[in-house]
Amino acid sequence: MVDVVQFIGPVLTSESMTIKVAINGYGTIGKRVADAVAAQDDMTIIGVTKTRPSFGCDLAVRKGYPLFCTFDEPSKIQAFADAGYACGGGITDLLSQCDVVIDCSPGKAGAANLERYKAAGVKWIFQGGEKHATTGMSYTSCANHTENLNAEGTRVVSCNTTGLSRTLVPLLEACGSLKVECTMIRRAADPGDSKKGPINAITPVLKVPSHHGPDVMTVRPEIDITSLAVAVPTTIMHMHAIVATLPDGHGMTTESVLNLWRQQPRVIIMNGGETGITSTAEVMEFARDIGRTWGDLHEIFVWEDGVKLEDNTLWYFQAIHQESDVVPENVDAVRALMGTEDDWKVSVNKTDAAIAAFNGLA
Amino acid sequence: MVDVVQFIGPVLTSESMTIKVAINGYGTIGKRVADAVAAQDDMTIIGVTKTRPSFGCDLAVRKGYPLFCTFDEPSKIQAFADAGYACGGGITDLLSQCDVVIDCSPGKAGAANLERYKAAGVKWIFQGGEKHATTGMSYTSCANHTENLNAEGTRVVSCNTTGLSRTLVPLLEACGSLKVECTMIRRAADPGDSKKGPINAITPVLKVPSHHGPDVMTVRPEIDITSLAVAVPTTIMHMHAIVATLPDGHGMTTESVLNLWRQQPRVIIMNGGETGITSTAEVMEFARDIGRTWGDLHEIFVWEDGVKLEDNTLWYFQAIHQESDVVPENVDAVRALMGTEDDWKVSVNKTDAAIAAFNGLA
Amino acid sequence: MVDVVQFIGPVLTSESMTIKVAINGYGTIGKRVADAVAAQDDMTIIGVTKTRPSFGCDLAVRKGYPLFCTFDEPSKIQAFADAGYACGGGITDLLSQCDVVIDCSPGKAGAANLERYKAAGVKWIFQGGEKHATTGMSYTSCANHTENLNAEGTRVVSCNTTGLSRTLVPLLEACGSLKVECTMIRRAADPGDSKKGPINAITPVLKVPSHHGPDVMTVRPEIDITSLAVAVPTTIMHMHAIVATLPDGHGMTTESVLNLWRQQPRVIIMNGGETGITSTAEVMEFARDIGRTWGDLHEIFVWEDGVKLEDNTLWYFQAIHQESDVVPENVDAVRALMGTEDDWKVSVNKTDAAIAAFNGLA
Amino acid sequence: MVDVVQFIGPVLTSESMTIKVAINGYGTIGKRVADAVAAQDDMTIIGVTKTRPSFGCDLAVRKGYPLFCTFDEPSKIQAFADAGYACGGGITDLLSQCDVVIDCSPGKAGAANLERYKAAGVKWIFQGGEKHATTGMSYTSCANHTENLNAEGTRVVSCNTTGLSRTLVPLLEACGSLKVECTMIRRAADPGDSKKGPINAITPVLKVPSHHGPDVMTVRPEIDITSLAVAVPTTIMHMHAIVATLPDGHGMTTESVLNLWRQQPRVIIMNGGETGITSTAEVMEFARDIGRTWGDLHEIFVWEDGVKLEDNTLWYFQAIHQESDVVPENVDAVRALMGTEDDWKVSVNKTDAAIAAFNGLA
Repeated sequence: MVDVVQFIGPVLTSESMTIKVAINGYGTIGKRVADAVAAQDDMTIIGVTKTRPSFGCDLAVRKGYPLFCTFDEPSKIQAFADAGYACGGGITDLLSQCDVVIDCSPGKAGAANLERYKAAGVKWIFQGGEKHATTGMSYTSCANHTENLNAEGTRVVSCNTTGLSRTLVPLLEACGSLKVECTMIRRAADPGDSKKGPINAITPVLKVPSHHGPDVMTVRPEIDITSLAVAVPTTIMHMHAIVATLPDGHGMTTESVLNLWRQQPRVIIMNGGETGITSTAEVMEFARDIGRTWGDLHEIFVWEDGVKLEDNTLWYFQAIHQESDVVPENVDAVRALMGTEDDWKVSVNKTDAAIAAFNGLA
Repeated sequence: MVDVVQFIGPVLTSESMTIKVAINGYGTIGKRVADAVAAQDDMTIIGVTKTRPSFGCDLAVRKGYPLFCTFDEPSKIQAFADAGYACGGGITDLLSQCDVVIDCSPGKAGAANLERYKAAGVKWIFQGGEKHATTGMSYTSCANHTENLNAEGTRVVSCNTTGLSRTLVPLLEACGSLKVECTMIRRAADPGDSKKGPINAITPVLKVPSHHGPDVMTVRPEIDITSLAVAVPTTIMHMHAIVATLPDGHGMTTESVLNLWRQQPRVIIMNGGETGITSTAEVMEFARDIGRTWGDLHEIFVWEDGVKLEDNTLWYFQAIHQESDVVPENVDAVRALMGTEDDWKVSVNKTDAAIAAFNGLA
Repeated sequence: MVDVVQFIGPVLTSESMTIKVAINGYGTIGKRVADAVAAQDDMTIIGVTKTRPSFGCDLAVRKGYPLFCTFDEPSKIQAFADAGYACGGGITDLLSQCDVVIDCSPGKAGAANLERYKAAGVKWIFQGGEKHATTGMSYTSCANHTENLNAEGTRVVSCNTTGLSRTLVPLLEACGSLKVECTMIRRAADPGDSKKGPINAITPVLKVPSHHGPDVMTVRPEIDITSLAVAVPTTIMHMHAIVATLPDGHGMTTESVLNLWRQQPRVIIMNGGETGITSTAEVMEFARDIGRTWGDLHEIFVWEDGVKLEDNTLWYFQAIHQESDVVPENVDAVRALMGTEDDWKVSVNKTDAAIAAFNGLA
Repeated sequence: MVDVVQFIGPVLTSESMTIKVAINGYGTIGKRVADAVAAQDDMTIIGVTKTRPSFGCDLAVRKGYPLFCTFDEPSKIQAFADAGYACGGGITDLLSQCDVVIDCSPGKAGAANLERYKAAGVKWIFQGGEKHATTGMSYTSCANHTENLNAEGTRVVSCNTTGLSRTLVPLLEACGSLKVECTMIRRAADPGDSKKGPINAITPVLKVPSHHGPDVMTVRPEIDITSLAVAVPTTIMHMHAIVATLPDGHGMTTESVLNLWRQQPRVIIMNGGETGITSTAEVMEFARDIGRTWGDLHEIFVWEDGVKLEDNTLWYFQAIHQESDVVPENVDAVRALMGTEDDWKVSVNKTDAAIAAFNGLA
């Protein structure tokens, strides 16, 4: 175990009345979701899993999250102790102690894990890397919290689908119907990934239309949406270029659309010309300036001066922090599955206030 | 004058019966257009201009293009001689010898130059960096060659507009009407430019809808088009993500659209899955493999497996070589203005065959 | 004033016994230094300056740092009130209230400011963008704290010089003499900068040897060092590739060099092979993981498995977080100038512990 | 077979008196070496190999290079015919017809291939991806042509080693001895590669000192050299930052060093300040301007104003076109092995003149 510098060290107090949450997969998303859950007074982290002793375990240890092995094989569990990490057992041991498991394992491991979760009798939440068909149920706080109440399990949709829901659902509710074309300009690798490219190219997703947009329909089927996607050489934030067609008689204006979004949780509206925030680089700098852990931005960023409604056509850009916008949604999804909060806005406010307080930003 | 290695050295023979062409501005576009003009048997390069003696002059000298000064001030002209470059005089001297001038100066110098060209009584061609309002006439070979016949002057539209015309005009002619949304993912700097960024960001063009798409209407007003644009950290090729709505009863299929484009000059259709050409990086490598000078690709590149028509909606991607797709269009525009070739397809074939032969690719 | 989300909101209590510090220039470095100073119990932020009302003022306001105008012109000061920001006056007003001013204005403004500071009778600290000749005195905590005691003013050296001092000074002190060649591979732009390039190129600094390495001699003249520098298309961290020649009879081994650095404040030694931290991307992810504000890394990062001593030659790599390694050095420099702490290590420990506590990382 | 646009179509005339050359592996290096060999009047391309029918075969077909299968299995050979490509047989068939095989297969396949070549009784040339230990003999035109005369086989060293030899060998010969430290700033992926990263990071080669520099000693053991290496997010050219220590009494000046290199074949000296060639981006643009196929630059590029000799220390930068500087060296190596030209400079001049003429640049 490497002994370095200061880590965040929240003192976690497990109370009997809180929801017991396990995180299966303590990586890019898992480490963020764990902190967001730990911040809530109605939830407790029971444990997080790693496949093997590795540098990533140190973070869990320092934060006080009990460490478990992703597998049940005794030799694999023993390996943790051999490397000097206390390990609470295998995945089965972890599942036996929790109410709900949030699966943050790498994409496509879902189907196999699902059987395990069902066998253990716990509720489960997958991430957007899994298919809707695997879970039969998907979740976004603003789109279908009510439908997910007391469900056996669900899938928190991808960062892109979450971002689209945040701006499209209120539009749909205001207008009654919506037809959308979205072009997704995607960051090709995460900031901590030095292996993936391209260095100097644009890569189209040749399966057209792409699967990204229509995934919105898993949480709000009334939105008629298709999409195209390209990957570009940047590590920070996806960009959505959106053209929405509003129904005749929509009664909206550019300004009323902006007001709708200003009232929407987890959406930030800022003016690029006035603030100098002209690209995803400055958006991320803004998130760092306001003290967000990891420099995360849970909110969707919409440029005020990049929104225009003419007749029935609405154009806008939004930037999506691919590593973090789904993090608070997982917390809300826990409450939906456990049936402890019926009102999505109440859950969202509680989630976000607790995260801010946890990070000293209240 | 730096004396290095081998330069291309075409032996230019000026004949009395050929169209006398001047290039005002021998830079990224100008150097390419000069070669394309020099390749034609019905045209002769009378001279090219530089603002001052500089390394860029060497290329003109080695290629045998007479060098002139962009300005008429004797001291500025003398500076060329002082630096060891033969200079034929100022811009007025050059204009007095030519039939048509192709203005490849940096954007926004147009209005001032236009007066000069008119005063000299020569025909003139501007590039897409100038506004349509400046020239009152615009040009793309496949869109409006006939309208430009014998005109006083014109503007060859930008690389993006040229690219859009190549695929949209035949669609329009096949279907009768067309509604288009295009998202332009633009390379942020040219390959030889080491100053401009961003290094790691996506920059939206906040003026929405952007000016890029509607520029198509300057050459073909019947195409109903809007666009959004972002800049990304790459130096090679723009990408267009296009959603076109065909009119009811269009009678087209994905395959018939592809066939339409296969017959269209200056469009290449290739299958990404079969060829391994999955991004703009491999497209540019392909251009280098087939021996194109500067690694240029005059054609628009469309991925066969990225085209899909469902009901009335057509999705496709196309890649645009920003430095070169307009180059042969300038040659065709010369013939239009001089009234020497009425049929755009005849001109295009002549232009392209001559360029290929000039570069040893025939 | 844009009203968004949660900002860090430390409650600052000004006490009469603390050192009164002004920050002239609240930008990339200034905003970080302000927080580091605010974290100390022996210092108080009297105010920070901005040239004009702008989005950057919001951060100062939210953090509770009194805002002043960089200039004294009444109209420029009034502009802040007009934009809705409380402004405490001009630079002269600010200087009249402080003991020491930390100049974090853009490079090369130093000489003019220096006169102003001297006239106001306050102590002053410049950053590494200014020349040593301007200040006549330079500072790095580990190199020359004692020399700076009670000085009128000083210059905290650049991020690169600071980084070199951290690893070279202890080596020098252990070996008696040192000859160094350093190649600096520099990030070309900061993460929040979307204007600068290059996107796809390596740019050599053609002035050879470069000024970077020899700047170390302004704080420790005994180190015989030269350097070469290139800029590369990345926004995160400089990299130093260092070859040091130790004197005969040095008595060191690879392991003893590593131990020397393990005991050195503000140096982190980690093993790339064991931790998977194989590039500057993973180093920055590590800083984010351990909860550092802005994802900063005040420490120099040295790869344990990238250090090798053979005979008299020592090779190693170190990564430098260009935006932040000098931040705590400014705090130590305040104590040196004010003569309140003679021992550099005591100051460093106090500075770093206070910053950690301030950020909830203690 | 995709039928597109114009390919280079040299008419190859096989004459009985020429050296019969096979290219095993027709990829990034192979396709370039094939053209360079085809350009020579004393050599003929007997055939090139591909592992399977693929888009890459088209280029060989269009250029008129007979196509063979990398393997001997009849089913693999038949696959070419099935895909519509004429295939001359397997590798054994190819080897039976040639005098010398140039192995351009991906790195590390060498040992297995070597046995095959020896069994076939042909001479062989490997590339720098293979180890010197595999071949026991290495080659660079300017370093050890004579030693390679009539050898059974050899290895043309890597692009980096070739580049170092070009500038260091003449220095060594002028000074008698040489001690060198080189930091290699390496492009992380080739231009046609859209898979590899990093996008935004610098990656050190933690094995220090690196293997790159010392590889020079396989062709010129007298050069005492070590190196460090990092990979950076660019696709065009490696950069070498070099510090050479000349022996006492060397008698050289900055200007005499430059003159030495000006007389050295395949080295270009240009002044960055005068030409505006300030980075690898402009160097590559220069190569495109002078009409080089694929935009290649066989020469090493040294910045005149980035060279400085002070006392015994020489600093300089050089840029290496990783895809092409070894190409003409392979041609010279063929002559060395076949014993047809004893004088390396005569071979180099013949090689380069033939390549220039072949590409219409004479």
